[in-house]
This record gives sequence, structure tokens and C-alpha cells, in this order.
Amino acid sequence: MYNKFCKKQLWECSRDLVSVAMGRIPAETVIKNAKLINVCTKEILENTDVAIHSGRIALVGDASHCIGESTKVIDAEGMYIAPGMLDGHIHIESSMLSAGEYARSVIPHGTTGIYYDPHEICNVMGFKGVELMIKDAERTPLKAMLTLPSCVPAVPGFEDSGASITSKDIREQLKLDSVVGLGEMMNFPGIQFSNEETHAITGATLEADKIVTGHYSIPDTGFGLNAYIASGVRCCHESTRREDALEKMRLGMYAMFREGSAWHDLKEVSKAITENTVDSRFACLISDDTHPHTLLEKGHLDHIVRRAIEEGIDPVEAVQMVTINCAQCFRMDNEIGSITPGKCADIIFVDDIISFNVKKVIIDGDLVAENGKMLYEFPEYQYPEFAMNTMHVGETITPDTFKIKTDKKKNVKVRAIEIIPARVGDYERQVTLEVKDGLIESDTNQDVLKTFVFERHNNTGTHGVGFVKGFNIKCGAMASTVAHDAHNLLVIGTNDEDMALAANTLIKCGGGMCAVQNGKVLGLVELPLAGLMNVKTAEEMSDKVANLDKAWKEIGCDIVSPFMTMALIPLACLPELRLTNRGLVDCTKFTFAELEVDE
Amino acid sequence: MYNKFCKKQLWECSRDLVSVAMGRIPAETVIKNAKLINVCTKEILENTDVAIHSGRIALVGDASHCIGESTKVIDAEGMYIAPGMLDGHIHIESSMLSAGEYARSVIPHGTTGIYYDPHEICNVMGFKGVELMIKDAERTPLKAMLTLPSCVPAVPGFEDSGASITSKDIREQLKLDSVVGLGEMMNFPGIQFSNEETHAITGATLEADKIVTGHYSIPDTGFGLNAYIASGVRCCHESTRREDALEKMRLGMYAMFREGSAWHDLKEVSKAITENTVDSRFACLISDDTHPHTLLEKGHLDHIVRRAIEEGIDPVEAVQMVTINCAQCFRMDNEIGSITPGKCADIIFVDDIISFNVKKVIIDGDLVAENGKMLYEFPEYQYPEFAMNTMHVGETITPDTFKIKTDKKKNVKVRAIEIIPARVGDYERQVTLEVKDGLIESDTNQDVLKTFVFERHNNTGTHGVGFVKGFNIKCGAMASTVAHDAHNLLVIGTNDEDMALAANTLIKCGGGMCAVQNGKVLGLVELPLAGLMNVKTAEEMSDKVANLDKAWKEIGCDIVSPFMTMALIPLACLPELRLTNRGLVDCTKFTFAELEVDE
Repeated sequence: MYNKFCKKQLWECSRDLVSVAMGRIPAETVIKNAKLINVCTKEILENTDVAIHSGRIALVGDASHCIGESTKVIDAEGMYIAPGMLDGHIHIESSMLSAGEYARSVIPHGTTGIYYDPHEICNVMGFKGVELMIKDAERTPLKAMLTLPSCVPAVPGFEDSGASITSKDIREQLKLDSVVGLGEMMNFPGIQFSNEETHAITGATLEADKIVTGHYSIPDTGFGLNAYIASGVRCCHESTRREDALEKMRLGMYAMFREGSAWHDLKEVSKAITENTVDSRFACLISDDTHPHTLLEKGHLDHIVRRAIEEGIDPVEAVQMVTINCAQCFRMDNEIGSITPGKCADIIFVDDIISFNVKKVIIDGDLVAENGKMLYEFPEYQYPEFAMNTMHVGETITPDTFKIKTDKKKNVKVRAIEIIPARVGDYERQVTLEVKDGLIESDTNQDVLKTFVFERHNNTGTHGVGFVKGFNIKCGAMASTVAHDAHNLLVIGTNDEDMALAANTLIKCGGGMCAVQNGKVLGLVELPLAGLMNVKTAEEMSDKVANLDKAWKEIGCDIVSPFMTMALIPLACLPELRLTNRGLVDCTKFTFAELEVDE
Repeated sequence: MYNKFCKKQLWECSRDLVSVAMGRIPAETVIKNAKLINVCTKEILENTDVAIHSGRIALVGDASHCIGESTKVIDAEGMYIAPGMLDGHIHIESSMLSAGEYARSVIPHGTTGIYYDPHEICNVMGFKGVELMIKDAERTPLKAMLTLPSCVPAVPGFEDSGASITSKDIREQLKLDSVVGLGEMMNFPGIQFSNEETHAITGATLEADKIVTGHYSIPDTGFGLNAYIASGVRCCHESTRREDALEKMRLGMYAMFREGSAWHDLKEVSKAITENTVDSRFACLISDDTHPHTLLEKGHLDHIVRRAIEEGIDPVEAVQMVTINCAQCFRMDNEIGSITPGKCADIIFVDDIISFNVKKVIIDGDLVAENGKMLYEFPEYQYPEFAMNTMHVGETITPDTFKIKTDKKKNVKVRAIEIIPARVGDYERQVTLEVKDGLIESDTNQDVLKTFVFERHNNTGTHGVGFVKGFNIKCGAMASTVAHDAHNLLVIGTNDEDMALAANTLIKCGGGMCAVQNGKVLGLVELPLAGLMNVKTAEEMSDKVANLDKAWKEIGCDIVSPFMTMALIPLACLPELRLTNRGLVDCTKFTFAELEVDE
């Protein structure tokens, strides 16, 4: 894989690297006296030095002869050093941070490379949005390696997103230097049913000699999984049972064990390794989705390594799972993933192999973070106006908008989406609601709330209408433009006035998440960048989310991270019932469903 | 790595593969009831089926639903199956067989892919010769993956070979589909001294995103090795001490443990794994040089796996070392090296994990060998006339040619090359010889024999003159055109008449190896293809070599495989004293040496 994520290509600096190793020219930097976590041989090697030049590693061993007057010597004082950590599958957007701020947040935790799939911004703005994210990320030292969004929109024909990506687009975009592969191929039915366009998307990636990343979320270790892998999908982060992960590894698929903010698979999935005597080279640790407060309070891959060790995975093996295994998955281990000569000098210092607190981070030979703080200043990046202005709702929203008329006289039976907290699935329920003046209203006693999804990308003026159950809100309303994957404007509420206020608050601020009550905005997280992110810092965003959390509680919502659960209400590729701007979708049959149930 | 070594590219057949796995179309072939040696997880999995279509694996597990009327079902009857074996570093020429015959010899032993460096034929005929070898190999099912000869001639300025390869040539040839990398970079001093042209050769390979293979033959695990690896060299087969191999693995270099016909490193080097608790993913098993009788009597990688198991390496780990580890070294594990969906259907059946007798071999889905015999018939290949006619010696050789004149009267002190049987090094000795009629003669009492190297590529009429010690020949002469790396005509003998006969015998038959006595050719192995190979079968060649062996013994030579040791006499990159067509070379100082020692 051609690696543009480095200071100098190896062939441009090999003569200098060799000269440093031989002692003919001084190293730019030498790390002295470290305990090396050797991920190649799975050992810890005491008293190891590393000589660095041109952003790359020239020598590992005794580097005394590489030190000259100009050499910066970093005494590790017996600390452990490990390769910079790699997250094999993440969506920057779920952090609500811009790519630059995301980099600033994760680097001090030891993350030096990410394989990111910007499919959220792509659903809103298409490749134009992806390009902005590339530019934003490029100014940072983070190796931001792109996997192209493969499924935009997620469920064609059932929703209106801001973009639509074809195999022709993919073929074109694969030529970009920053693209290392295809983002999670969620359309596993398309793969399994040999759909021509779906295979054209994966095929273009294979033909470009890049990596197809996967998303196989059903508990199947049989022929369906085989079929999926046979198409060339190389990794998958959707194992929730130990047997799923183990079978993927056995079938030569990299099993990426997920420990994100919302989805905690590691406890169960780590048993694939701890309860079987297997070679774990096909296992990785990844985050998928991380929220700003998780980044601040727990960290990123450092936290996940600690969690893996807690679950009984050998510490050096856990480090392999965020370094060389991930690099081998992407066939980039010639460039990154180990502290060995010739590789990019991406090196982290940790105080201890168990507590795994990251003390220093070196990327491409530069000390970029220390004691949890970024040292490296990178230039400002200004997103263009169009990226900060993506609320294009084609109707004026007033309380009247939320009136739901019916021909029924007294009672009406409607379909409702029942959420399952901290799970991605939901249930289709049928509930009976009272009819007042020909209108159907929310019923807080039954915890059944009006839910609207407004198309917000192309002023189509369309919206879908449904009911949800499970948030336990007693008053007010809540709204969000983080609404997978089309990211239209989602509004849930107990009364029409508050719903209109919630919707219009987000339209006004360019998108985000809010909670309102009695005509007052209780909490608001503005996400003006594509309606998904903010250019503010992680600290500021974390505070805002904490405030919103409080507001949610005030209006009665008692589930953890309600916005994550809420955000999946429109995601029509998940069972059982979903609501998009086009209406209710029966996701078991892939047909539209009527709101009212005929009796 | 773009893989042209398959029946169909995955993107061309993924829809069919998926249809097979899903049971919609029947598999072409199904293997039933096997014990799978799973190299991904290092396990043995009982009762496993494999479904195959379009030359690739569609499913691994229960394949009952993949069987249709047209499906060929192979009942493994509980035998073990493993991925087809890969030899990470070999020279076809050392088998004395053409590429086609080589393939025919190794495939029944379970070898399905080789990474070969044709630097012998390249020294004789340049890329024209390499191209012929590619064509010869292409007609066979063997995945013959080429690494470009990197050091031709081996020691520029000290010998005349038939070709000279520059970085510009390398850059051009890297574009060939069959080229996966650069052959062993023997010029480690060139790397270590940052020589521009040497780094241009490795750099061109890195820039083409291909693999640089190595050759680091000195016992150094310090900064010299670091420097060599920092240049981007990814593997090395020259470890002779356990600590060399271990250090290479620790430095992220694939350590290729060699067990060839002449060099037996495995006994010692395997201790890198068996006496240390290390992850062995950076270890491979390779042959480097295998002679026809070894292929016939012992086998190829199957033999080396058995040897590895004898040395205490876990059997499944030994199989990993000839499959997935090698594939990962060449960053081709997405295509070969494991029995997992989507990969090329290269599968071997073995009777038992310890005895490791290969019973069946499938390549690209076709059963190509069974019970040690090739089933697959491939078309004839005719080497062009120029390839069968490479003896271009620019002088008429007669007994007079071998007269060595001196000004000394009675005695003369000369430099002699003392060979060390079964070792690649030699010693420089000084011996005193009697002068008769102004001429220096061989002295069988001291075991000091006249040795001549005639340039044979471009009719330059040059020859070098020296003496060797150690073969213990009492009468007659021997000659060979297998004389590394320039492969000029080497003649050693006790008297001028027999030396002339030996030389002219080889000139007449187009090259080879022979032993003569009293005007009679006792043994002759004709190698008319570039003076290195023959298009006959391994059986015929093995018989011929056995006859020659007998002849060698008749004239008194008592060392094992004398021709291997003899062939290194001109290799001026090895210590201490060597003889090329330009004269004696002091290989410790890289200067020419005088035959006579001044006193």
C-alpha cells in the first residue's frame, strides 16, 4: 500500500537512515533506556534505544553511536515504549468533533493512526464533505487513513440523504492517496445475493489493491458469513459473541473487537482469545464510535488496551492488537505498526504495561504530545460556508406541522417503534391511542411519543411520521440531526409547540441536538458542521453534551446516552421498524408500513 | 500486491463464489471430511469441508449445500488439509532443471508457490534469460513469483559475467506482472555504505510497492544489521546462528530458516523459536538451493516441515512458516497462504501432521498431483536456440593452455584457495610448489591443483589462473560451468591433457559438469540451458549427477557434493580468496592478488 502518511518515503531517505544506523551522521532523535514492547516477537526487551531520522526509525538496540551534538536525546527512564496505536475502524463524526479536534483529542492518548470511514458526513454532503474532512485531518500529525463510504445512502429507496455514491464514484475516489480502502460494507445482503452494483463497489477496491472493510452484524457463523468473506471483505468490527469473532478469525477475517462509547463488545468477545488457545494475529481492538466525554474521561485506544488486559488478554498481545495486527490487516506493516528499522517513527511511552498511561507520543519522529497534552501546533482550518450551512428543510415548521390527522373517531391503533436501550435493534409494537378532534396525540402514560423525520438536505419538504416508545419523556421534546445514516432532522415530543421549537432551534443553529420544555430550550449541542460536528474542542463539546444530558433527565428521559439510541431510529437497515423522511419502514420485509393498523 | 498467479481475479468471480457459498450454484469441487490445519488461528479443526469455484475457495465449514450434480467431490477420508506451501526464497537453477521440470518435481511434494530469484541465468543471459524462465514457468500450475536479480554481476569489476543489471533496468522490469519484488540484495556493503546505485535498486522496488528480499550473511546482530533492515529489506535467509534469526525477527525482518541440499541451517536456527518463547509470525522455512536428488529422495518443503518438526517446532507452527507467514512477508496473504474464503484454492492433503506425506495437491481448484505424481499435463516449452548455446569461449583450449610459467627456478610459493567442505567460506593458503622446466604443476601429494576460469559469455578470451586445495583428487580433472555468480568455465585438474579434455567436453555439450581421467570422460552432466540447466526430468538429472558423483570418487574426490563447493570458487563476494576469469581476488580487501607470493 502506497503510504503518503509519512514525513519522507523510505526510498527518499534510506541512505540517510543507513548512515545514522552506521554512525556516520547523527540521529535527529534518540530514545535512550526504554523497555521495548516488541510486537513482532511478543516480548519485552529491556534497555533498548531507538535512533530516529527523517521521521523514520534508523536503529533499535544500542544507539550510543548515533548521538551527535545535534541529536535530541529523550531519556525514557525505563518507561515502556510501544508502536503508535492504530484504530482499525472509527467514525470521526461520532465524536462530534471536527477531524482536527479529533486528532488533538486522541493523539495524547497514544493514537497515531486511524482507519476512518466518514460515511456520516458523506451522507450529508457527499464526497465534497469527505474532501473537507481529509483537508482538516491533513494538517494534523495523525495518520488519518481513509476508507471510502461504501453504502450511501444506507438503504436506497427508503430515505433521502444528501448524497448517493455509486461504484463509479468509488472507482474514481480510490485513486486518492489518502484512501486505503473501502469503508464498512454494511450491505451484506447485497453481497450475499450477488448484487452487481454491490460487488462492483467491493470489486473496484480489490482491483485497486486496497482493503475492503466489513460490517457483518448478524449472529451467523455459517455459510452467510463464508459468502460475505469470499467476496473479499477483510475485517469486521461487528462481532458481539465470542463465537462470531473466533469464526471470523478462523476464516481469515480480521476480527475487530469493539469497545466504543455506546457499544461494549469487549467483555464478551475477548473470550474468543482468552478461552481458546489460538493465534491472535487476526484480532484487533477498535473503537468504532467514541463520544467526546469518553475521550476525555477514559481515553481512546489506551482505554481499550486497559479494558482488554482487564478481560484477561495478555498485555503484550493487547498491544499487538492495536499495532502490528491492524497494520497487517491493512497490509501496511511495512510502514507502520512496529518499532523496527525503516518504519515510521510512531512511538508511544507508557508508564506501565498494565496501567498503560501514555506519557509521550512521537509521530514521524516528532514529539507531538506529552502528559496528555498536545505539544504540536497545527495550522487553523476553516470549513467553507456551505459545510456549516447544511439545514435545507423545505417547509416552514410550526406547531401545526405536528398535527397527525385520522379518520378514526375515538381510538386508533398505530405502529410504534420500541427502542432497546444500548442495543442497536428495536421492536415493532402496536399501541392504541385516543383520538381528540380528529387528531392523534402523544400519550405519556403509555410512553408513546410523536416522532417526525424531516428531510433536510434538498428542500424536498418531505417528512415521515411515527411513534416511539421507551424514552420515558414526560414533557417537552427533543430533536437531533444526528440521525443515521441520512442524518435528516429527527424530532420526538410530547406536544406540538415544543416539537416545533426543538426543530426550529436546530434549523437555526445549523443542526445538532436539543431538549426543550414549555417553550424553553433546556439544552443544546450545536453541530453546525454538516449538522454532525462542531469545530470546538473536546472539552467544550463534552460540557455541552453534559448539559444536554441534564436537560434530557429533566424532561424525564432515563436511559443512558439517549442520543445514540435516538440516532438509530431512522436507520432502516436494522430490525424491526424504523422511521425515515419517507415514512415508516418495515425492516424485516423492506417495505413501507402504514402508521395506522387496520383492524 | 496485484496477483496474476490465479485462475480468476477475485473481483471477476466474487459473485459466483458468493452464490456457491450461499448454495445457489453448485461448487466445482468440494473437499469433504478433512482435518483442517488452520494457519490463521493455529488450530486443527476436524470434519471440515471446502467448497471451490473459479479456482478459489468459496466456503470452509459444512459444504453439503454446495454440492450439485456437476460437483466433483473429493473425500479426504479424515486426512489433514493445509494451504499449498510457499517457498520464500529459491533459485530454480540450482536444481539443474528447467522451470517447467522444477515445477513438475516440487508440486507433488505440496509446493504451490515459489518466490524465485533467477540470478544465475540472469548472470549468463541477462533479462532475456529471465524472460525465458518466466515463460517456461507460466505453462505450469506452480505460482512462480519472481524476485528480480539485484546483484548482476555479483562483484562488479572483478569478473566478466554475461550481463550487467542497473537500477534503471530494475525500475523497468518491476512493471512485469510476474515480478513481486527484488531478489536477494547480496550487496549489503553497498547498502551499509549508502551507495547511490545500490539504494536506487532497493528504492525502485519500494517505490513500486514491491518486496525487497535480503541476504545478510555475516554474524552481526548490531548496527550493521539495523542499517541493512532500515533500507527496507524485508526478509533474509542467511541466518546460521539462532541469535541471528531471533534478532532479525525482533527487528521486524522475516527470518527465513534455510534447509537446502547443501546448507543445513535448520538444526541451529530453529532454536530461535524452540528455545525462546516468541511469536513466530516473522519466521519462514525456505530451501534456497535444492538439487535434483534431494527433490527425489527427500522432497521439498514437505521435507523441510518434517525437519522443523524433528527440531521441536510445533507442527502447526511449522506449517504456518511455509504458508501464511510467507504470504504475509510478501504482503500477499489476501490471495494465498490460508484455506479461507476468497483465497486461491491451493490446498494439499497430508496423511499425518508429523510424517507429513503429501497425498494430493490442488492448485487454483484443480487436482494437479496425487501420490507423488503430477496429474496435470502442461504444454511443451521449447527454449530458443540462443539459450541452448551459451558457450562463447574466445580461445582454443589445448593442453598448452594450462601451462603456468614462472621465472622461479626450483621452487615457487603460490597462493592457493583452500575449500571448506559444506561451508561457503574458504581460506587463503600459501604453498610451495616445485618448478619443472619453468612451469608450475599441480601437486597431488600436497593436494594442490591447477585451477582455471575461462570467460565464456562474450568470447573475450580471458582466463584466470590459480590453485585450489581440499578436493583430494589424485588423477584426472573436473570442470563446471556452474560457477557462481558469473558462471564462467571452471577447470580443476592434475594434468593439462585431462583439463583440456574436461573444458572442451563442456564447451562441446553447451555447458555442465564433468570428470575425466586419462583422456576419458568418466562422468558428464550436460547443462545446455545457459550452461546451468537441462530440460530433462528430475529423475534423469538425478541419475546423471549420481554417475558424476561416482566419477568424482574414482578420481579421488572424497567430499560430499563437490560441485557445490567447487561452484563457489569464483564467488568473489565471499571470503577469503577466489578465482575469477580476471584473476585471483583477495576478497577481504577487494583487490586482485598475484598468483606467486614474493619472498
